[in-house]
Amino acid sequence: MKANSKKYLVEFIGTFFLVFTVGCCVLFNMPGVIPAIAIGAALMIMVYAGGSVSGGHYNPAVSLAAVVRGALPASELIPYWIAQILGGVAASLLILQMVIPPMYTNSASYESIGLIIGEFLFTFALCYVVLFTATSPENAGNSYYGLAIGSTVMTGIFTVGSVICLGAFNPAVAIGLGTLQIADWQTVLLTILANLLGAFAAAYVYKYVKQ
Amino acid sequence: MKANSKKYLVEFIGTFFLVFTVGCCVLFNMPGVIPAIAIGAALMIMVYAGGSVSGGHYNPAVSLAAVVRGALPASELIPYWIAQILGGVAASLLILQMVIPPMYTNSASYESIGLIIGEFLFTFALCYVVLFTATSPENAGNSYYGLAIGSTVMTGIFTVGSVICLGAFNPAVAIGLGTLQIADWQTVLLTILANLLGAFAAAYVYKYVKQ
Amino acid sequence: MKANSKKYLVEFIGTFFLVFTVGCCVLFNMPGVIPAIAIGAALMIMVYAGGSVSGGHYNPAVSLAAVVRGALPASELIPYWIAQILGGVAASLLILQMVIPPMYTNSASYESIGLIIGEFLFTFALCYVVLFTATSPENAGNSYYGLAIGSTVMTGIFTVGSVICLGAFNPAVAIGLGTLQIADWQTVLLTILANLLGAFAAAYVYKYVKQ
Amino acid sequence: MKANSKKYLVEFIGTFFLVFTVGCCVLFNMPGVIPAIAIGAALMIMVYAGGSVSGGHYNPAVSLAAVVRGALPASELIPYWIAQILGGVAASLLILQMVIPPMYTNSASYESIGLIIGEFLFTFALCYVVLFTATSPENAGNSYYGLAIGSTVMTGIFTVGSVICLGAFNPAVAIGLGTLQIADWQTVLLTILANLLGAFAAAYVYKYVKQ
Repeated sequence: MKANSKKYLVEFIGTFFLVFTVGCCVLFNMPGVIPAIAIGAALMIMVYAGGSVSGGHYNPAVSLAAVVRGALPASELIPYWIAQILGGVAASLLILQMVIPPMYTNSASYESIGLIIGEFLFTFALCYVVLFTATSPENAGNSYYGLAIGSTVMTGIFTVGSVICLGAFNPAVAIGLGTLQIADWQTVLLTILANLLGAFAAAYVYKYVKQ
Repeated sequence: MKANSKKYLVEFIGTFFLVFTVGCCVLFNMPGVIPAIAIGAALMIMVYAGGSVSGGHYNPAVSLAAVVRGALPASELIPYWIAQILGGVAASLLILQMVIPPMYTNSASYESIGLIIGEFLFTFALCYVVLFTATSPENAGNSYYGLAIGSTVMTGIFTVGSVICLGAFNPAVAIGLGTLQIADWQTVLLTILANLLGAFAAAYVYKYVKQ
Repeated sequence: MKANSKKYLVEFIGTFFLVFTVGCCVLFNMPGVIPAIAIGAALMIMVYAGGSVSGGHYNPAVSLAAVVRGALPASELIPYWIAQILGGVAASLLILQMVIPPMYTNSASYESIGLIIGEFLFTFALCYVVLFTATSPENAGNSYYGLAIGSTVMTGIFTVGSVICLGAFNPAVAIGLGTLQIADWQTVLLTILANLLGAFAAAYVYKYVKQ
Repeated sequence: MKANSKKYLVEFIGTFFLVFTVGCCVLFNMPGVIPAIAIGAALMIMVYAGGSVSGGHYNPAVSLAAVVRGALPASELIPYWIAQILGGVAASLLILQMVIPPMYTNSASYESIGLIIGEFLFTFALCYVVLFTATSPENAGNSYYGLAIGSTVMTGIFTVGSVICLGAFNPAVAIGLGTLQIADWQTVLLTILANLLGAFAAAYVYKYVKQ
């Protein structure tokens, strides 16, 4: 039961980020190739992060295929579906609550609440991907950790970067942007705060799932 | 003979998706970098999915090179060529039968038949890629499953997404798009139906090829 | 000596394709992200194809770094440099000889000589990459073969596709384009001929290098 | 202590290139998808190059998560943070000192100082990535070396290529561009000089870290 609840948490988190990325791309009217690349990369990073825990489905159709093929017990299908649908609906509800900027600006002045949510979510995702792909004994020796980690930052920049936040996901980058006078120091401080909170959250989720 | 027919089926499916992607990109006038990335990714995902079964050629020139190099028996060349050409012609004929939208719209209202074909085909591809790259004992320990799975969704969004269907390939995404009022619930229900049919089809193809 | 000449051939081929890609991107005025992605991918595919033979440098600076670090004997530096520079100059001279189309057209009618060179070169590259990454015992069990193979087609479409040739690199794709009436059948036949010649050339280079 | 100083050097270098890429993308107003892809790839290549030495964090939030999870000793947190912040600030200060071209030109005539800095930095990065991913015994048998090497050139072209330098990072490419009359021979000579200096620097950093 304990082990299963960890799988459902991983499925919830992965589907949350997949649907959050889809929703932001559509609602922010991301142009050209961005939605396809961002959504494909969001799925990729969550598959690499959670694949060894839950199979990394994040998709009721994939879980159904896994049951028919014999890779997932039939008794797990409904709980997987519930975790996935809850993750997707949670992402949609969060997006609807967010302060959507009236238009895309390059002014690098953001609403505090959107800035904190955006920097928190993708720093969480970045640390979550690093911990599962680059420090987990179960995934030792893999060749994908750099691709997953780099793609997490790319997805975050596509999804929330410069629309609702700096897209730093990294205090060193935030300080660099302050030094370059691209961001004011209050934005830098809020960004660093959100980054460190995301790091704590990811580390505790990792410890819960792995211990 | 049985084993060989499985190889031909895998070559047929891979060449079908490669040529289907080429045809949609050209006929829908996909701009800029989209055709090159979508076609390269379509080949990549099918190579990763079927490589351990048939070699993943999907190309008469590659099969010829494999025979000359000694990696494919000469007696297999003609059957491989037939499977590949049939796959390519089948994809072309399906495209010619599809209801091509008169113009690209963002209205998210699609012809039912195109919506079902688009969601079915790429949910099939997604589940097929998941089952072969992430659950097949022959490919255990590989580092490419996340890249292949994420790229399948990217290719599907480039190829049919928002032109003839939502590009969800995933009931949890479809429900999220409904919650965000980006799609009406009738479209969501048709999408989920097509997704689940694609999952069944992929699981049965996997079981036929692997058992 | 024999073994060394094989290394020089691999360095010549890799640098040829790298500089050929650079030259086409600049001379054809490829817009936006295309040059960076095409050139990076051209280097990647040649590194994966030839890495286990010559180290896959294709760059005098990299060979110098390898000598200083101790990964390449100092006596090999000058021959490597000669092979690399010859490969780059050969690519430049070929580009200067090619019939450059006066403007980019979508008419899918190409000069025969450019069509044959473009389809031959990248079908050669595709079969060369397949044979070295997916059939060579030295590279067994790698996770990059699908990425290398898919990226070869992407690079070919960026570099010569639709500018001087169809960008099929594959008779099944050429036949599909004929079926869709995107290309006339004379272009399809010339394309298939160039594809099969590229396959033979790649297989003989592979056999020379590996035997 | 010696081993630790090597980790800090690797963290400094990685964060330097990450923040240098961020700063150039913003200050040069790189359009569309370029910042997200360039920054994600910059992180990826440095993670692959330095991951086995320092963990490849380049981010105080990631180091914090690693401490909380137990993958980095708590006593290392402050030194890691200092190395990362110094790397980021150094990159910002270098960017502020660089001669920023008044506008983007295709004339391929560059300020000598910017040309040398741009070609030196990314040839250094390229050789650094090659030595650590393709010649280091600790990373033997990995499947990512080609992706990391190709992506380094892509990132360099996005970040400094054609804005402040040719974006060759390779004497064979520079000679090819001279042959094609895309660059004058004085630019080619300065480029080759900067490329060879970058190769020496990377080889000595590798030898310091590994011996």
